[in-house]
Amino acid sequence: MQQDIKLDLERHWRLGFDEAILCAPKSVIHLTQILDQAVQGGLRLLLTRLSDRQLSELPPPHRARIDYEPISRTGYFGAPHDVVGPARVAVIAAGTSDVYVSREAARTLRYYGHANIEITDVGVAGLWRLLERIDEIRRMPVVIAVAGMDAALPTVLGGLVSSVVIGVPTSVGYGVASGGESALCAMLASCAPGLTVMNIDNGYGAACAALRILRAIGPS
Amino acid sequence: MQQDIKLDLERHWRLGFDEAILCAPKSVIHLTQILDQAVQGGLRLLLTRLSDRQLSELPPPHRARIDYEPISRTGYFGAPHDVVGPARVAVIAAGTSDVYVSREAARTLRYYGHANIEITDVGVAGLWRLLERIDEIRRMPVVIAVAGMDAALPTVLGGLVSSVVIGVPTSVGYGVASGGESALCAMLASCAPGLTVMNIDNGYGAACAALRILRAIGPS
Amino acid sequence: MQQDIKLDLERHWRLGFDEAILCAPKSVIHLTQILDQAVQGGLRLLLTRLSDRQLSELPPPHRARIDYEPISRTGYFGAPHDVVGPARVAVIAAGTSDVYVSREAARTLRYYGHANIEITDVGVAGLWRLLERIDEIRRMPVVIAVAGMDAALPTVLGGLVSSVVIGVPTSVGYGVASGGESALCAMLASCAPGLTVMNIDNGYGAACAALRILRAIGPS
Amino acid sequence: MQQDIKLDLERHWRLGFDEAILCAPKSVIHLTQILDQAVQGGLRLLLTRLSDRQLSELPPPHRARIDYEPISRTGYFGAPHDVVGPARVAVIAAGTSDVYVSREAARTLRYYGHANIEITDVGVAGLWRLLERIDEIRRMPVVIAVAGMDAALPTVLGGLVSSVVIGVPTSVGYGVASGGESALCAMLASCAPGLTVMNIDNGYGAACAALRILRAIGPS
Amino acid sequence: MQQDIKLDLERHWRLGFDEAILCAPKSVIHLTQILDQAVQGGLRLLLTRLSDRQLSELPPPHRARIDYEPISRTGYFGAPHDVVGPARVAVIAAGTSDVYVSREAARTLRYYGHANIEITDVGVAGLWRLLERIDEIRRMPVVIAVAGMDAALPTVLGGLVSSVVIGVPTSVGYGVASGGESALCAMLASCAPGLTVMNIDNGYGAACAALRILRAIGPS
Amino acid sequence: MQQDIKLDLERHWRLGFDEAILCAPKSVIHLTQILDQAVQGGLRLLLTRLSDRQLSELPPPHRARIDYEPISRTGYFGAPHDVVGPARVAVIAAGTSDVYVSREAARTLRYYGHANIEITDVGVAGLWRLLERIDEIRRMPVVIAVAGMDAALPTVLGGLVSSVVIGVPTSVGYGVASGGESALCAMLASCAPGLTVMNIDNGYGAACAALRILRAIGPS
Amino acid sequence: MQQDIKLDLERHWRLGFDEAILCAPKSVIHLTQILDQAVQGGLRLLLTRLSDRQLSELPPPHRARIDYEPISRTGYFGAPHDVVGPARVAVIAAGTSDVYVSREAARTLRYYGHANIEITDVGVAGLWRLLERIDEIRRMPVVIAVAGMDAALPTVLGGLVSSVVIGVPTSVGYGVASGGESALCAMLASCAPGLTVMNIDNGYGAACAALRILRAIGPS
Amino acid sequence: MQQDIKLDLERHWRLGFDEAILCAPKSVIHLTQILDQAVQGGLRLLLTRLSDRQLSELPPPHRARIDYEPISRTGYFGAPHDVVGPARVAVIAAGTSDVYVSREAARTLRYYGHANIEITDVGVAGLWRLLERIDEIRRMPVVIAVAGMDAALPTVLGGLVSSVVIGVPTSVGYGVASGGESALCAMLASCAPGLTVMNIDNGYGAACAALRILRAIGPS
Repeated sequence: MQQDIKLDLERHWRLGFDEAILCAPKSVIHLTQILDQAVQGGLRLLLTRLSDRQLSELPPPHRARIDYEPISRTGYFGAPHDVVGPARVAVIAAGTSDVYVSREAARTLRYYGHANIEITDVGVAGLWRLLERIDEIRRMPVVIAVAGMDAALPTVLGGLVSSVVIGVPTSVGYGVASGGESALCAMLASCAPGLTVMNIDNGYGAACAALRILRAIGPS
Repeated sequence: MQQDIKLDLERHWRLGFDEAILCAPKSVIHLTQILDQAVQGGLRLLLTRLSDRQLSELPPPHRARIDYEPISRTGYFGAPHDVVGPARVAVIAAGTSDVYVSREAARTLRYYGHANIEITDVGVAGLWRLLERIDEIRRMPVVIAVAGMDAALPTVLGGLVSSVVIGVPTSVGYGVASGGESALCAMLASCAPGLTVMNIDNGYGAACAALRILRAIGPS
Repeated sequence: MQQDIKLDLERHWRLGFDEAILCAPKSVIHLTQILDQAVQGGLRLLLTRLSDRQLSELPPPHRARIDYEPISRTGYFGAPHDVVGPARVAVIAAGTSDVYVSREAARTLRYYGHANIEITDVGVAGLWRLLERIDEIRRMPVVIAVAGMDAALPTVLGGLVSSVVIGVPTSVGYGVASGGESALCAMLASCAPGLTVMNIDNGYGAACAALRILRAIGPS
Repeated sequence: MQQDIKLDLERHWRLGFDEAILCAPKSVIHLTQILDQAVQGGLRLLLTRLSDRQLSELPPPHRARIDYEPISRTGYFGAPHDVVGPARVAVIAAGTSDVYVSREAARTLRYYGHANIEITDVGVAGLWRLLERIDEIRRMPVVIAVAGMDAALPTVLGGLVSSVVIGVPTSVGYGVASGGESALCAMLASCAPGLTVMNIDNGYGAACAALRILRAIGPS
Repeated sequence: MQQDIKLDLERHWRLGFDEAILCAPKSVIHLTQILDQAVQGGLRLLLTRLSDRQLSELPPPHRARIDYEPISRTGYFGAPHDVVGPARVAVIAAGTSDVYVSREAARTLRYYGHANIEITDVGVAGLWRLLERIDEIRRMPVVIAVAGMDAALPTVLGGLVSSVVIGVPTSVGYGVASGGESALCAMLASCAPGLTVMNIDNGYGAACAALRILRAIGPS
Repeated sequence: MQQDIKLDLERHWRLGFDEAILCAPKSVIHLTQILDQAVQGGLRLLLTRLSDRQLSELPPPHRARIDYEPISRTGYFGAPHDVVGPARVAVIAAGTSDVYVSREAARTLRYYGHANIEITDVGVAGLWRLLERIDEIRRMPVVIAVAGMDAALPTVLGGLVSSVVIGVPTSVGYGVASGGESALCAMLASCAPGLTVMNIDNGYGAACAALRILRAIGPS
Repeated sequence: MQQDIKLDLERHWRLGFDEAILCAPKSVIHLTQILDQAVQGGLRLLLTRLSDRQLSELPPPHRARIDYEPISRTGYFGAPHDVVGPARVAVIAAGTSDVYVSREAARTLRYYGHANIEITDVGVAGLWRLLERIDEIRRMPVVIAVAGMDAALPTVLGGLVSSVVIGVPTSVGYGVASGGESALCAMLASCAPGLTVMNIDNGYGAACAALRILRAIGPS
Repeated sequence: MQQDIKLDLERHWRLGFDEAILCAPKSVIHLTQILDQAVQGGLRLLLTRLSDRQLSELPPPHRARIDYEPISRTGYFGAPHDVVGPARVAVIAAGTSDVYVSREAARTLRYYGHANIEITDVGVAGLWRLLERIDEIRRMPVVIAVAGMDAALPTVLGGLVSSVVIGVPTSVGYGVASGGESALCAMLASCAPGLTVMNIDNGYGAACAALRILRAIGPS
């Protein structure tokens, strides 16, 4: 099965991103082949959606090289990039139940060498909690707002700050909220001008969007 | 075609509501038969979703008896009930585009003799507008919150006031907002505790729910 | 991970509700942190959607403080509020299969100190069973009607009683009924005037809506 | 374009139905060709969903042969079959707005020579109206129940009568009721045992199902 | 929890059906209470969607009284009704994968004392297999046609036989077929006149519809 | 606005197709610019979904160059390619109402110089009509099967012929059939092996697929 | 009706945007009130989705002040902001049929004083057209990519340039493409890292997102 | 249960395909009966979607005859057909995660004696990987393009090669990509002319379509 894997080694050169590996849909055989290639090529990799079970089934030498964070299910295979400069991104989760996504964004930013601040439990049904932190948030040029259910947080934020706001809906919830389509649609239909949106649960993608923006801004 | 109509004359006796006529799906022939029966029975009626075109095609004597409001497309056929007591319901529309629904609620309440206050253009993307009015809203035991698109208004309200909050999604908007399902789902999935929800564009229903609540509260 | 939790301690003061914890999407680590904070703050909590598995994995001292009811999967962490006055809410389930939701509503009401009556197995395909109980139901100012599948029960009730009726669709059923959207839409589209609706399976929310109404009514 | 039309002349012989023509999606050119063939073959035809506009654009000799009913938009092209025996089908519409479908069923039955009784405005939000007529309905071996919105009528009927009940959802309504999927799903998910269901607005199909059943029962 | 169960003892008297118990969504505690009540009342019951696991967890005396069939997951609690007369229903499954539904229909018919013939593997992608059996099928006044995926079988049957045809979609299949909505919609949209349709996987309901028809036909 | 148009002149060279213009979503200003460029470049064009209204609003010299067919709404702008060889494609429409799509396929094939046979009114609810023509169909290496509603025709064909079968769902129908998703899903879920499917109403695309296949087969 | 309008005059101060008026869902009475307030307040306004019909029904003095562009249906009420600096945004439409959205983005950018380049007819089914322009595109820090149907353009762009890419799906197309959900989902599910997405047809919103980014980048 | 199985022995004779067995929805009892019949009839069979668990539960003699490939979950029961001639089909997977489907297509082709080339990891977000292989792909008359998520690969291919392109969407992905409907719709809505589409994950069907085309082309 050697021929099933072809890492995209030009991506860094062309886009400025290392290749990241979405692990969930891949078999352990394929994951092992990928890590083998990375070791051979002297590459570091960001692993996303790596389950506990998958991690435990990897060959021990590979497993030992992975810095794993269980809530976000992310792993650093090799050392992450060095951090340069102060935090320029706020990663905000509406509730504790949304941290599995916001942490994925924070870990991705950190992997690429960008500091960031994480804020949790500021859902708009208790507006005072958000307003206490709003000045801190306003100072960041990029805000990642993670929310499920009614997903009102990014709309409220989009009306309070002039920064770039990237909304990430989560699949948390039951009934009509289950799966995250309600949250996704609420963000897309937001009346806050210029709110951008990612796929449901896509914390990794939100971080990549932030990286494109930070690159356009230039070094801090 | 005389046999197609059978007004529900017991409704007032059983539920405390006069019968209201949803006009949109009915032919002018049927509407005329209904108004004929009402005249014969000495009944007043609330007409909802009565289009300009339908109104203009009714027999002139019937048309002359109708007090028509064009934005809500409601008509009073006969005098409305007398107003008793002060306003106990706030009817709030997130934007000007939602007034066609909030006005239907306000007109229904007025028909049944209940004063109410109407507030418009307080969408949460401009939060300061809502906060200016919040004390006035808090004094009402029942709040009807009408919003389309992201429908974040009822969630924010539900976290700011302890009154009964009835959310009404509107079908205003384009893309994923079109038709109102996004707004509906955002309200149903709201993280504000105890928010109740009506069908899309159902201002009449929201007013009826308010009437059931006011009856439970008793005279003011 | 200490920073992931921030309980909303102002909620009771602002809305009259203690914070309730939706346990299903939370990790045991996060649940433990929440209960730790509650113990430190001298708070009682209502726990909803707490699975058997989650319960069994909590630290024994926390587990010992929880009064757990398995069908509704609710837990009281600390003593519930004292009951004051007679029952003013009827909680009605169309069938035995809907009790997991109606019990959640009943337990939430009881937690906040409100007596209530539970009625089961009165689906409208056997109308005589409902009619036997209708006078008892009519005496309650608030009726919570829980039903899945065709969800005809709240519509029939809404035509028989003048009380406030809160419909809660359940996800019970197969084929088009699976997940509860059919029941939800049938309730939203109900021809009974003034029926209010909650998200699928949201017994907790229905109880909160009842609490808002009871507060508006005032002490019995 | 002569070759675009091929009437199914064997259908009557095989299934006992004359061919019926669904007019809505057909051009007037095609409709004219069909009626030409029918005249040449000495056939009568049932025309369904024939709009006023289409009718007015047909060649006058064809138009003159059509017995047209505007609410159901049905036309008899040639004399209908003779009525034999008493009514054995009840065609019931929940509300006046549903008559466009129930009339189509009644007209189709009549075309094929079957008497029937039509009952309107017996929606279950006003249950007493239905109960007044229930004995009359029980005497019919086949009941066609037409309803939109919550579509609770067939479920209640299915629990009150032991006859064959054929549910037909209508597309009447707004919000989630719009288009008829809510009504369709409520009927399919009905807890009344043995309720059969037709496509939305398919009064013609319900009559054809009744015809198959009456044929199985045999002559009255 | 005694009060959660209330068997519908009048159903047999009113509709001619014994109560059937849909077991899947019920807890073993509730199932046991139901069987206890049946034993006390001297009732027999039809159990549907009773899983192997549920069966194995029932009290042994109850389990011993159940005649269980694993593919349909049906159980007879007590002896079924005696068979009277020859088969008047054909129960047809398009493929082997659909037998879990067609067997449920056949077992339900048998429970109520009606013989029937089962035919399998006659999907229309191999039309000759169906045509070999078509004369046998035509002799039955009622045909239950069970199919998933494209669900073309009931349409082809509806054009070949003049009997009553009851279509039952199944949830078998993957991609767009998964869950059975494709099959359901294909049946509802069928161009075969008078095809009636049941909810996805509802073999029990199809049998109940057949029972209503057979009752209308009268004894054979 | 000159810069809005850039015809793809390399397409013929790369893919063997001239550019075809989907007219429906284009303004008359843009259409005129396109035809101007074609005249200047000496190109012929295939115009699809050109409405009567659009045609009538084009500049008369352009209009005069268009060979228009109203049912398919196709136009040849310039002479079509010469026909070479006998018909190798059967274009089959289940009913008269589907001809607007099958004709588009036939006209596209003819534009590119391929003869074809058109067959109509062979829906499977009247199976004998299809079986009469099946030998003629089997002689064609490519079969385009156009059907709406239940869309059973391609499945039955796929089981009767070994040719390449291209299914095209149509949007004809009402209720669940409306818009064509039922037909699309029935084709995608077909149990006939190797049936390929096009987007709803995409007769043009089906012809292009046939052209790719005929090119692979080589000259006849 | 004076009280229905409340312009958000603080928006510019808080977010850096003037208020823009979404005209489509508003009545001409409301639009006139808004323009009256703007004149009184000395405000300029951006009008979006202003139909020809609405424009023609405005009072002539207001109409005379509007610089209207018909394809995007945008109007400048008062002079737009002065342009400062070179173009930093590329606005790209996959096809001519998508220009109604890309032009809205371009006009919004221009209103706020930002030059931009527009590129059209570079859909990926003719990849060579895009590759010819790719160097020009790469020089812009922000790229707005507008596409309907398969919406593959933003994915391909996201893999070719390291700029910020904002995808805007359009509702152009038929069958499954109709309404734009296919295009929306294809963009959200894109495998290009860091692609951000707007609601269907939301050219205005894409421009606002670009404005937030340009503000973060700072003056050129 | 012997009567539940009826293999379609005429299929090979009529369509040129042996019968293939879709194993996923079948019980092991039924699978065993099928393999018993195959042994008795001297047939070879292609088994698709045969899970590890099902394989392990088959009787050992049957299991020993199966050549199983775990990623595609396909099994050859008996020797496959001999390979004749060079590869004429390219089977292309956009990413490693799509190989479970592309391998099913490749294995099906091989079973029927057709060589083919497999290409992986050429998704269009890294366009250069595809362009490196494009000449090799162009030489094949039939191309099967397997992709999930945005599914842009078949569109790009359809614009680069003039071969027959068969798109197969996969269910890989999360959020809106989950289940494969996004990928399916993107392929159906493709602007590449003449792209044909299969059901989600239907690698087997794509191979059967290729077989029909290869048969039309004739021996190589």
